[in-house]
Amino acid sequence: MAQQDKHAISPRRDEDYPEWYQQVVGAAELAEPSSVRGCMVIKPWGYSLWERIQAGLDAMFKATGHVNAYFPLFIPLSYLEKEAEHVEGFAKECAVVTHHRLEAGPDGKLVPAGKLDEPLIVRPTSETIIGAAYAKWVQSYRDLPILINQWANVVRWELRTRLFLRTAEFLWQEGHTAHETSDEAWVETRKILDVYKTFAEEHLAMPVLAGEKTPGQRFPGAVSTLCIEAMMQDRKALQAGTSHFLGQNFAKASGIVYQTREGGREFAWTTSWGVSTRLIGGLVMVHGDDDGMVVPPRVAPSHVVLLPIVRKEQERAPIMNYCESLAAALRARSYHGAPVGVVIDGRDMNAGEKGWQWIKRGIPLRVEVGPRDMEKGAVFAGRRDKGPREKASQSREAFVAGIAATLDEIQQNLRERAAAFQAAHTRAIDAWDDFAAFFTPANAEKPEIHGGFAMAHWCDGAACEGKIADQLTVTIRCVPLDRGQGGPGKCIVCGKASSGRVVFAKAY
Amino acid sequence: MAQQDKHAISPRRDEDYPEWYQQVVGAAELAEPSSVRGCMVIKPWGYSLWERIQAGLDAMFKATGHVNAYFPLFIPLSYLEKEAEHVEGFAKECAVVTHHRLEAGPDGKLVPAGKLDEPLIVRPTSETIIGAAYAKWVQSYRDLPILINQWANVVRWELRTRLFLRTAEFLWQEGHTAHETSDEAWVETRKILDVYKTFAEEHLAMPVLAGEKTPGQRFPGAVSTLCIEAMMQDRKALQAGTSHFLGQNFAKASGIVYQTREGGREFAWTTSWGVSTRLIGGLVMVHGDDDGMVVPPRVAPSHVVLLPIVRKEQERAPIMNYCESLAAALRARSYHGAPVGVVIDGRDMNAGEKGWQWIKRGIPLRVEVGPRDMEKGAVFAGRRDKGPREKASQSREAFVAGIAATLDEIQQNLRERAAAFQAAHTRAIDAWDDFAAFFTPANAEKPEIHGGFAMAHWCDGAACEGKIADQLTVTIRCVPLDRGQGGPGKCIVCGKASSGRVVFAKAY
Repeated sequence: MAQQDKHAISPRRDEDYPEWYQQVVGAAELAEPSSVRGCMVIKPWGYSLWERIQAGLDAMFKATGHVNAYFPLFIPLSYLEKEAEHVEGFAKECAVVTHHRLEAGPDGKLVPAGKLDEPLIVRPTSETIIGAAYAKWVQSYRDLPILINQWANVVRWELRTRLFLRTAEFLWQEGHTAHETSDEAWVETRKILDVYKTFAEEHLAMPVLAGEKTPGQRFPGAVSTLCIEAMMQDRKALQAGTSHFLGQNFAKASGIVYQTREGGREFAWTTSWGVSTRLIGGLVMVHGDDDGMVVPPRVAPSHVVLLPIVRKEQERAPIMNYCESLAAALRARSYHGAPVGVVIDGRDMNAGEKGWQWIKRGIPLRVEVGPRDMEKGAVFAGRRDKGPREKASQSREAFVAGIAATLDEIQQNLRERAAAFQAAHTRAIDAWDDFAAFFTPANAEKPEIHGGFAMAHWCDGAACEGKIADQLTVTIRCVPLDRGQGGPGKCIVCGKASSGRVVFAKAY
Repeated sequence: MAQQDKHAISPRRDEDYPEWYQQVVGAAELAEPSSVRGCMVIKPWGYSLWERIQAGLDAMFKATGHVNAYFPLFIPLSYLEKEAEHVEGFAKECAVVTHHRLEAGPDGKLVPAGKLDEPLIVRPTSETIIGAAYAKWVQSYRDLPILINQWANVVRWELRTRLFLRTAEFLWQEGHTAHETSDEAWVETRKILDVYKTFAEEHLAMPVLAGEKTPGQRFPGAVSTLCIEAMMQDRKALQAGTSHFLGQNFAKASGIVYQTREGGREFAWTTSWGVSTRLIGGLVMVHGDDDGMVVPPRVAPSHVVLLPIVRKEQERAPIMNYCESLAAALRARSYHGAPVGVVIDGRDMNAGEKGWQWIKRGIPLRVEVGPRDMEKGAVFAGRRDKGPREKASQSREAFVAGIAATLDEIQQNLRERAAAFQAAHTRAIDAWDDFAAFFTPANAEKPEIHGGFAMAHWCDGAACEGKIADQLTVTIRCVPLDRGQGGPGKCIVCGKASSGRVVFAKAY
């Protein structure tokens, strides 16, 4: 095999995409399974991605008038039961606390003791426990709106788990707002969808389609669920964020009642919305390549790694000094409001191996610093969005002066590449046979990557939706908010009237 | 009662300190009890204090070489049992997950179902679950040190709870490090104690004593526990942070073994350390006064509130514009590396009531903006560290230009005030009768605030320590790290030799 065909990750994406994903998550040191069923350990490099996601989103939430707070981890069973669809949606997969201490059993081993009068559920989401607080806080229309977000861990006892994409415990943010009118709550629901879309596209370089879920795919208890959907490199969709208009359902369940301007009494209108550590899985699957992770600069924990190339011991001190001064010069530059992040990796190990470690982690820029670079005042840099052997020398001054522009160029390149990929695999389809063929691999024994986003007409009927799901494991990812724009047509299944195309895809 | 004797909080500190505390926590909108036993709701103003604490500490952890990561919420019972003292310390107060779903019981009501093979404990602290990961990560001395911190929620099923000070669930950070040698682990343990002391004194304006816990007060499983202790205004001590040297105890329990430089095999040396939302309770009790919370500027969510005084409707627009421009000018100034935080409170409500709300919340500076101030280009400002009616007018230019200096002056004033209070109630005591009198209220029926920190000699005997605890409910808060400096003496209880004074106090 020629040198240029070798890749750091095996299998390649086109060989076995799910296994490639697991390998990248491991090789990039993002996370690993824990010995606790379904829970993961988020390793420092993976967690620092989450910190960058948190920082970016938190600033956007605050800029749109939201504040953070914190509510209890445990939800009394009776609270969860207050909203019928809601408890139905979560009862099958929740961690139940039944005891509050341990004591030695008959054989001397510790067993649960101190049985609780009422079981507590480890929150799978917090509508009901937060609703109980809002019911106390809200008396009058003057107390509205309440615009609160919470950064927290939640637990959903998934039986089949996958790092970041589906784990029993995950980290997320959940916004919970209460409003005076239906209109205001709708404005909020859409505003947050915009925040998510902007964040996904500008920070994560991840193009998304925004729209509304069909009734069958709604959050349990919601009147409407809006979502953003991204296309992974296996052409499946990933639901990357949801914003729910809850109507008065949860206000009725929790008793959030306010005195209106006219002196009457009315239930509040509420919303909830969230994104989770699942976004990290999305980053891997949108930008990763056969050499590992590729981190968009805007969410990169560090932007540049300096790799001192020390061949003789007496070179070490001057090269390290050169690296320190280069790092200081780079850190003095700003990238989107914060200093450029620089790591000097001075570990005493094989230089090639060290370089590949950073390629696999996906840091945007690698700079090798050897004695000749130092003498020439040059840097020898490789960009992660280009091939691993594509490196170029330039003057230190030019590199430092252009650092923010280079990072923006990488960010832009990743976004355009992902948008082109999505466009290439999005197709308007009008005939059932074409639709079925689009979602069926040519060779069932060894299915190649296939499908994508099919823009097709739908009669709004649950029967047609169900038929497609059963026959092709394809779901309606969303109904575009501007559905009508492309004009009406006929349902891809039954041929009845459709007001516009909706987005079909296989999904995570 | 004269106007100046009125206070926003009732009772006053000297009337009923515990009740005053609860009232301040409520009036400042920091937190409230939730309907889930022992759990609290941290309200936005309280949570933003925690965000400031997190930001300050996180920067100090990172500056000392630590990174963040995240480990599972659940700990298998068998893990907890691996360290005998550790499980003994936590078995009596832990939330136990025994089931993973809910199903309809005989009467149709939902009951726990899907019993787990092994119960899971909601983490009370994470030494054992993190130790299991480190055991996988560490092979050789080259993999050490590991310097990781986690921001997380933990649960300890306390029977008597108090907002922030003792709750079933609380938020904290927990550092967990692994080292090649005992010396290195000791250096880490002390380094973090220094970080905590510096943070408490410089950010929280909270003077602390640092030292070592006696064997009876150690963290379950630790070889040594170092701590910082602060004096509250009722002269009781609050343990504000702990840093544990764990020796090889937890490495042995978890199997963290590394190949040494010489090719042998050795258990790693570990440390753990944490501070929690308890610090917010400490802030209330150190700085709060009879009008509510007093927030030190370095951890204040906002530094200045602008209170438009609108008497006629046509004045509203120009006054609001003036406020906006004043806010912009203030936000353009920097305070300890971040923009000055400004809120404009334009709510349409009674101006006096509004002002008192901000006094109770403890914002450092209040500025009233009326038509005359606007005309004169003046601001009328009140500092929270002074009396609520002590307000002064100055030119807008001088106020804006001096904002960082004013905030630093408030910070310094709070710190000096707290230090003077601690000094005034710290006493070297050598006779048992004086010691007992110091910790005994004159009137048992209506105990006034009494006691403080007694610096007394101790023979290092558990019997004498126990006698003091039983008779006076006084504990040794810490053994100063420089204990020998004051010279030797005789134990306050038994008269045997003591190498130096230790710190006695009643405590939270």
